[in-house]
Amino acid sequence: MAAELNDSSTAAPAGTLQSICYERGSLRLLDQTRLPLETVYLDIKDSTDGWNAIRDMVVRGAPAIAIAAALSLAVEIFNLAFSGKPEDAASFIFKKLEYLVSSRPTAVNLSDAAEKLRSLILKTAETADKADTIFQAYIDAAETMLVDDVAANEAIGFHGASHLRSHLENLQKISVLTHCNTGSLATAGYGTALGVIRALQTEGWLKKAFCTETRPFNQGSRLTAFELVHEQIPATLIADSAAAALMKAGRVNAVVVGADRIAANGDTANKIGTYSLALSAYHHGIRFYVAAPITSIDLSISSGEQIVIEERSEKELLHSDGGRGKQVAASGISVWNPAFDVTPARLITAIITEKGVIKKSSEDAFDIQGFIENAK
Amino acid sequence: MAAELNDSSTAAPAGTLQSICYERGSLRLLDQTRLPLETVYLDIKDSTDGWNAIRDMVVRGAPAIAIAAALSLAVEIFNLAFSGKPEDAASFIFKKLEYLVSSRPTAVNLSDAAEKLRSLILKTAETADKADTIFQAYIDAAETMLVDDVAANEAIGFHGASHLRSHLENLQKISVLTHCNTGSLATAGYGTALGVIRALQTEGWLKKAFCTETRPFNQGSRLTAFELVHEQIPATLIADSAAAALMKAGRVNAVVVGADRIAANGDTANKIGTYSLALSAYHHGIRFYVAAPITSIDLSISSGEQIVIEERSEKELLHSDGGRGKQVAASGISVWNPAFDVTPARLITAIITEKGVIKKSSEDAFDIQGFIENAK
Repeated sequence: MAAELNDSSTAAPAGTLQSICYERGSLRLLDQTRLPLETVYLDIKDSTDGWNAIRDMVVRGAPAIAIAAALSLAVEIFNLAFSGKPEDAASFIFKKLEYLVSSRPTAVNLSDAAEKLRSLILKTAETADKADTIFQAYIDAAETMLVDDVAANEAIGFHGASHLRSHLENLQKISVLTHCNTGSLATAGYGTALGVIRALQTEGWLKKAFCTETRPFNQGSRLTAFELVHEQIPATLIADSAAAALMKAGRVNAVVVGADRIAANGDTANKIGTYSLALSAYHHGIRFYVAAPITSIDLSISSGEQIVIEERSEKELLHSDGGRGKQVAASGISVWNPAFDVTPARLITAIITEKGVIKKSSEDAFDIQGFIENAK
Repeated sequence: MAAELNDSSTAAPAGTLQSICYERGSLRLLDQTRLPLETVYLDIKDSTDGWNAIRDMVVRGAPAIAIAAALSLAVEIFNLAFSGKPEDAASFIFKKLEYLVSSRPTAVNLSDAAEKLRSLILKTAETADKADTIFQAYIDAAETMLVDDVAANEAIGFHGASHLRSHLENLQKISVLTHCNTGSLATAGYGTALGVIRALQTEGWLKKAFCTETRPFNQGSRLTAFELVHEQIPATLIADSAAAALMKAGRVNAVVVGADRIAANGDTANKIGTYSLALSAYHHGIRFYVAAPITSIDLSISSGEQIVIEERSEKELLHSDGGRGKQVAASGISVWNPAFDVTPARLITAIITEKGVIKKSSEDAFDIQGFIENAK
């Protein structure tokens, strides 16, 4: 099942770390459970392999999960000997999509992606006169998801780097702090917040990236640090709680983080600790950016007040290694372990999307709906 | 070497966890390297055992180290068959004190304590006509250090609890967030910031204590959580980075932390992460207190600008369990791991000492020197 590290696939720029290596008929996923100590890719031959990879956390990050699931079925279909009718092909796909969604029923991106693919196949089936037409439409659509996600991330990187450069023009190079993992390991490639850092580095504008550990699950020390070392980006790891002291020392010019969900007013839910970083940045007059695709914006939510914060396992704090190691904390202590927090829009300088940078109006508020309508 | 948990010694109130169990001629130290999973006391028979206990981190926390060292020699002396002259007794003590200081040469409290004991013995030796007089003076002085430290901490607890109670009078009970370990495990007993929480609990004024993990060495999850469970104080552990979200949710009424060093203007050096908590508390209008004995105040330092921050091992972030477990972070990432940060006086509501609470003048500044002179 294991293969050596290979960056030769075509979906992301050469040299960039890839969690998803896809060529038509072949899919390999970087086993993130073994990072950073081992770089091992698993061959994914069908939707069953895809289902297992998602359940076993081989692949993680909302966009990456959805795309890995879709591609696992694309590979299965490509290698399939099928002799049924067009309607049987459509039923086959629907059944498999339903199965894939069951690997992580709470992942909204995954069920959204499955629903989009289902609609497309339904439409194709109306006119298709052979099974192959339907299968080819599925493969094309799954591949488009991969290409589109990487392209969106590259656009986020481009817009973010240009914006940062223009707003910090008296500096030759800038240092950026980020949180959690928003890179190639969480997306189809390139990354969102980490994509902005990547673009700054490519342009020669990056002095240094700082990444937090991102307690309690250590996505920063395990994954972001790994990506930064892999990409040879000058980078330093800090404890989450050291960020304020780092800012006070004048060593950070901007903070760029990802987003789980952005409300219509710009309030942003993201990995726990984001709000604390935003408060520190605000206090030190440091620009604070959210970098995320337009799909992370939920206009049906007027403000962050409406976002319900999921709590995660106590074990992540009670045991070492994000809950996977030996017991660290005293037996009997209770734990509060929120997965996310909400950063109010007033602490956010701007939101970097693939369509451009959403800035505040003169009233110090975001008009996100207006931005999206203009960008169409 | 190992004995069962026993709280029957006299130096701290009954029921309170003790890291130092002393009776004349006998010393046992709680092995903090085995907490929180095992509660094991080590018999300390002489200064060699004391030296080993300090070097092996069996005992930690600046006041605790100094007192454990002094008492290990007191036990050795009590059980000594000595037939020399008074000047030989003094030389014996000087040599042993020098040896004890070498266990942790950078610990200022330890060398200060040794110097004080040395001065006292020098003075006693001027008039002593037998060795026993000198030995008895040493034992009395070492025991006084223990008693004085516990008494000072109890006074800090009393003043802190009374102050908090009077300033949050519309609440029946209050919830307090603390950082790092400042309890019985870091002092001779009772604790400083944790002493305030202990006193609030005793008075029936505590709703809940929150303790941070205190990355990267986990003093909060390993030690403070252990103490809180042991004392049956209602308590919840959070990731350092979750503190801001906790405050935003209105679940914290006050923050109380300890101090490594307090400058003349009130700027306070304390465990990394303290500054971040102070910023969050300030932003949410939550009172932020430093609780420490007068000896932590260094009037020779005019402000926090003059405090040099020590950096600790990269391994604390690269490996799990504060550097003692398996590798977590990617090889090749650089690390910034400051031991402390400095919280400016303007973010500090008041400083709680054993002589009372140092409040700000109408100019929003502390007159610490004036307070100390009045308290004499």
